[in-house]
Formats: sequence, structure tokens, C-alpha cells
Amino acid sequence: MRVKRYQNKFDYSYTLGMAPTIELIQNKPDTIFKVYIHPRYTPGEHTINIIEYCQQKGIPFEIDERVIQRISNKGNVFVLGVFYKFKETLAKENPHILLVNPSDAGNLGTILRTGLGFGFQDIGVVTPAVDHFNPNAIRASMGAVFSSRIELFDSPEQYRDSYPEKEFYCFMLEGKYSLKQAPAPASENFSLVFGNEATGLPKKFLGYGESVYISHSDTIDSLNLAIAVGIGAHHFSKL
Amino acid sequence: MRVKRYQNKFDYSYTLGMAPTIELIQNKPDTIFKVYIHPRYTPGEHTINIIEYCQQKGIPFEIDERVIQRISNKGNVFVLGVFYKFKETLAKENPHILLVNPSDAGNLGTILRTGLGFGFQDIGVVTPAVDHFNPNAIRASMGAVFSSRIELFDSPEQYRDSYPEKEFYCFMLEGKYSLKQAPAPASENFSLVFGNEATGLPKKFLGYGESVYISHSDTIDSLNLAIAVGIGAHHFSKL
Repeated sequence: MRVKRYQNKFDYSYTLGMAPTIELIQNKPDTIFKVYIHPRYTPGEHTINIIEYCQQKGIPFEIDERVIQRISNKGNVFVLGVFYKFKETLAKENPHILLVNPSDAGNLGTILRTGLGFGFQDIGVVTPAVDHFNPNAIRASMGAVFSSRIELFDSPEQYRDSYPEKEFYCFMLEGKYSLKQAPAPASENFSLVFGNEATGLPKKFLGYGESVYISHSDTIDSLNLAIAVGIGAHHFSKL
Repeated sequence: MRVKRYQNKFDYSYTLGMAPTIELIQNKPDTIFKVYIHPRYTPGEHTINIIEYCQQKGIPFEIDERVIQRISNKGNVFVLGVFYKFKETLAKENPHILLVNPSDAGNLGTILRTGLGFGFQDIGVVTPAVDHFNPNAIRASMGAVFSSRIELFDSPEQYRDSYPEKEFYCFMLEGKYSLKQAPAPASENFSLVFGNEATGLPKKFLGYGESVYISHSDTIDSLNLAIAVGIGAHHFSKL
């Protein structure tokens, strides 16, 4: 395989840098094609030695400058992990976050990291949506993409049919309750639902269960999507 | 004045695109040097006509392709506002957010936008810090930088001396209270204090008033700074 600069249609993607590559090795070792290490790589005193770590875990690796140079714009990347994309299904019994048509890779990555921190390991994504294996999403997730379960759906209805017992909390400007006043979910069997960065959730979601809004002044049009998800996930988190 | 690509040392900066330029004109008209408009600009049906708007508000403008091309990498910028940097002091009686050494322009912009939405219009920044007039910060703020008051300080102590009556809520991993259990402030005369993206707040802040942490699992090292500020500002918001 000749590793090329990322395109969505590829069946592989990659991690740039130590931190996400370590997360990849720890959580999804079976998906790894190869780890590339720059000849000028030198392990830090208090950090994992990636060469020893690959040897220990039986991960194929290669000292190779060309692949890293071809893939990465930046001069400061010394470790690159190439992995095959994988598919997962959400854990039925866990609380979910459902993102409807998210479009920004940085936002999606930040949401994965934040969700994981607040106990939301299961993230549904309704397409069309930004590719969660985009290297920018992986970087913003700080590798959380390898410990979360992410499942794609063609429509919100397909998600509802797959997880019919979920109690929905749809975040929308027209929501019925201010978040701080929203009724608590009956169990952990609920989904927090968020719309696209620019358009939010369509009106029909008002009929899909509870609907909530995050109260803010009209000096701003809307909150950033990752901020809204962070506030929602923190509110509903048991941690 | 020959407008050049941004550097921190300049006494001017600029807004790229319609939305932040409108915010600039609405909130800080006296700081504007000139608005540059691309010859291919055509007003949208449901949007402000920037030429008429400048005429109406008495803002100097020029139809000029070269300045826009020189400043902006992207081909889709049709409006650019050049303004002189300005200084402000915080409103004493308002709640504040104090950022200690923030380093990321996107984070800072998102924090300004989020803070403004939750009623925090007064933002202290302890230097060294990323420049809030960096065009990337302005863009991420969606123009909130022009309706917020931002004041720089050489040290947290200088801030304390300037606003000695503020009740501090320092956000730090070692904080005394989980945010959800934190005692409510006695009045609106308080400050939410956040550290740098990588290092957080130094230990000495434990002695500066209340200290709180945002509870999350150890599957992630920390929350993104803008997410943490968003959660804190929402919690303490009266809106």
C-alpha cells in the first residue's frame, strides 16, 4: 500500500503525532496497518518510547521519512499511525449523543473528546455529515475517536427505528424547557440530539420527545455546536 | 496606510467577511480606518447591503480588489474592515471571566462569543496570551470581540489589585467543589478564572477564593478550554 494524503473515499486514515497514535494502539490495535516513525524521532524522558511500545504490542512499524513528509504539512510530526477504518454499533443500554448533519471536523472531534469525558461513549451521526475519520477530527478528538463507538445513520428515523426505547432530548431554539429546568430522564436510556452548526434541528424534532434550549442573550445568534453539546453532556452526566 | 497581512505588533487589525464587519460597524465605528469591498461583491436578497450601510453610517469605504487579495488567503472574502486596535477597562460591577495565559486564537474567540451569550461581557486576559485582535480570534468570536470589554493584565495579582472586591471562582483540577455543588456567589460581583490550555491554573490559585472542578472521567486528560469556560459560564449565568 502506498499511503497517500487523506481523502474521504479511502478505506484507511491516519493519526498525526504521538498522543493520538498511542490512543490508536491502545484501543484499536487490530485496525493498524503500520506505524511510521521519523528517523529523527527521539523519545522524551517522561514519555512512551514509541519503538519499544510497538515492539511490545506487536504493532508493525517502519522508520521512514518519506511517508511522513508526504502526508503531513507540518515539520513537527515524528509519528504517524495508518489504520483501516472500522464500523461499530452503539451500546443499546448506554446514553447516546445523536448529531444530525454535523459539518465541521474540529467540532466533531471536540464533541467526541467532551462526550467521552462526560460518560457518553456512544455517538450516533446522521449523514450527510463530516467524516469522523478525517485526520482533523481525529486530532481534535485527541484520539477519543478510538475509544468511542460511532454509528452512522441515513436519517433520524433510521436511528429511532434502531434504538426505539430511547428517550429523546432535542436541543433546539424552540425547545420547551430551558436546560436548567428540563425534567430528568427516567433512566440512562436517553439520547441528547443536536442539529447542524448553521441550521440547528428541523421543527419536526419538537415531536420526537422532550425538547430543550440553552438560554442565552440575543447578543449572539447561537452557541458554537461543540459548546452546546459540552453544556448538554455536562448537565446530563452522572459523573 | 498600506494594509499588510496581520502581525501582532501592528496598531491595526481587520475583519474578514460580512458578519464580523457588520459587528465592527455596529459596535466600534470610531475605530474604523476603512472598509474594503470586492468589485465582484453583490448584496444578497435578505442581507444588509454593505455599500449602503457604510454610506448610511458615514464609514469610509473603497471598492478595491488588491487589498482583499493581499490580506486574505481565501477566494470567498468580499468584505474586509480595517480598524485601529483599542483598549478598554472592565465594568467593575459586572461578573468577569479572567483567562490566565490563553494561547489559542480559536479558543479565545469562541470564549468571547460564548461569554457574551451568557452575560459575561467583561473579559480579563493575563499575558503572555494570544492576541485577541488576531483575525482568527475575531473570526471565531463572530465579532463578539467588538461588543465585549477586554482588558489585559501583566499578572493575576495586577487583576486582583484592580478589582479587589471580586469573589474568585478558580477552575482547576484540584478544586474544592464539583461545579454542580459549588456555593452560589454572594452577588454578581464575581470572576470565573481559567488557566492555560496545556497547564491549567497554578496551585497558588487554590488560595484566591473558591475553587471548583468540572467532574469528568479519566478517559480524557482534560476538557478543551472553550468547553470548560462554556460550562462554567452557563452554570453561573442568570439568563
